[in-house]
Amino acid sequence: MTNKKEIFAGIIIIGNEILSGRTQDTNTATLSIWLNSLGIKLQEVRIIPDVEKTIIETVNELRKKYNYIFTTGGIGPTHDDITALSVSKAFGVEYGPHKEAMSILEKYYKPGEFNEGRQKMAHMPLNAKLILNPTSGAPGFYIENVYCLPGVPSILKSMLGGITNKLVGGEPIQSMTINLRTVESEIAKSLKKVQEENNEVEIGSYPFFKAGKLGVAIVLRSIDQNKINKCNTEITQFVKQKEIEIISND
Amino acid sequence: MTNKKEIFAGIIIIGNEILSGRTQDTNTATLSIWLNSLGIKLQEVRIIPDVEKTIIETVNELRKKYNYIFTTGGIGPTHDDITALSVSKAFGVEYGPHKEAMSILEKYYKPGEFNEGRQKMAHMPLNAKLILNPTSGAPGFYIENVYCLPGVPSILKSMLGGITNKLVGGEPIQSMTINLRTVESEIAKSLKKVQEENNEVEIGSYPFFKAGKLGVAIVLRSIDQNKINKCNTEITQFVKQKEIEIISND
Repeated sequence: MTNKKEIFAGIIIIGNEILSGRTQDTNTATLSIWLNSLGIKLQEVRIIPDVEKTIIETVNELRKKYNYIFTTGGIGPTHDDITALSVSKAFGVEYGPHKEAMSILEKYYKPGEFNEGRQKMAHMPLNAKLILNPTSGAPGFYIENVYCLPGVPSILKSMLGGITNKLVGGEPIQSMTINLRTVESEIAKSLKKVQEENNEVEIGSYPFFKAGKLGVAIVLRSIDQNKINKCNTEITQFVKQKEIEIISND
Repeated sequence: MTNKKEIFAGIIIIGNEILSGRTQDTNTATLSIWLNSLGIKLQEVRIIPDVEKTIIETVNELRKKYNYIFTTGGIGPTHDDITALSVSKAFGVEYGPHKEAMSILEKYYKPGEFNEGRQKMAHMPLNAKLILNPTSGAPGFYIENVYCLPGVPSILKSMLGGITNKLVGGEPIQSMTINLRTVESEIAKSLKKVQEENNEVEIGSYPFFKAGKLGVAIVLRSIDQNKINKCNTEITQFVKQKEIEIISND
């Protein structure tokens, strides 16, 4: 589709609490918006349970498929936090007390409070590099292209700034949204034609219902703003012919 | 772990809008809570793009792995709605206008309004069975163990009632949550011991921060309420010894 460099990512959400419906995952949205801003395209998300074999297999499958993998969850102090051990096994590297992480947490806690549970949070692949945690001390880590982050959304968010400069981004993805006062079936045929003639722009169509009224959001995404603009012109044209109201366009 | 029947499910969320961060997925939480109530255990969720090859491969991989698969998204009238065609290809069955679905939509729309876009919503595997849509007419469908639902959360929710009696459920999963005024590292060691001695109960530990105070939610899940009660007793015991406040227990 393009000769410009494309960089792809996958996310692995680790946690029984997401699969049971107890917790609503919001980390996918946080990470995907951040990745967009870096020109990295999120291709796949997997939500998997706290099961060692599943974590190992998923990490090993996805790290070969995409440029970057981000895991969330399972790096805390309790028995159900098995991400660091599982990732060590996925890479076949030694798991144990990470010198730098131990030193960070030793300083973070008051003397005598760096107990066994807290020490577990410094256990990880011994050759991992750290992702600093400005919120609650315990660092994340990365090994090759796999970045392991915590599950708590506010802590995860605070750690992204420390990774940004470690990643090689691609061409930033541009986007434009055209909100129309119509229903999808009215524009489906014309929109399909625009997509067929503009294959370097990803055109999505999303119905919405706001303030008692139906509408459709057309989302144009591409690394090439000119090609988005061309689509926008073609869409605006058929929309005017059909006498459909354009609610907004930005 | 148990000799009672266990039934497993997987979810495939189809849509570029989730991967781009434009839309926050909530269907996973809706489906997982509903599956819980039927005694069906959600094992895995995949969020994938609107790409035919990816949909085909994911459907074919997961439908062999789990008792039930639920897909969401991609069954609307526009060019980016390719779930029905992709699922037909996954099963190697003919895709076209489904007689019963055509008849439903013909009655649903006013005369002359059943246009090409709307007719597309009745195109699906010809041998599929329908999932009725009490909200907006266009039915979902299922073929063997793969149930295809829309992406719009309110419409998806309204269609679940129509599937419930088609599924064979397992033993209902019981759960109990113990909220403690503590931090995870204080209880990690004792909790690990309880987990090791009660391997038929899944014990999760989730830190929270509410109304300015830290706490930990311990979640016990099992099909056997007696085993949950036994864990609860053991946890209550060590919590009292440690003089930790129990905020709630239900």
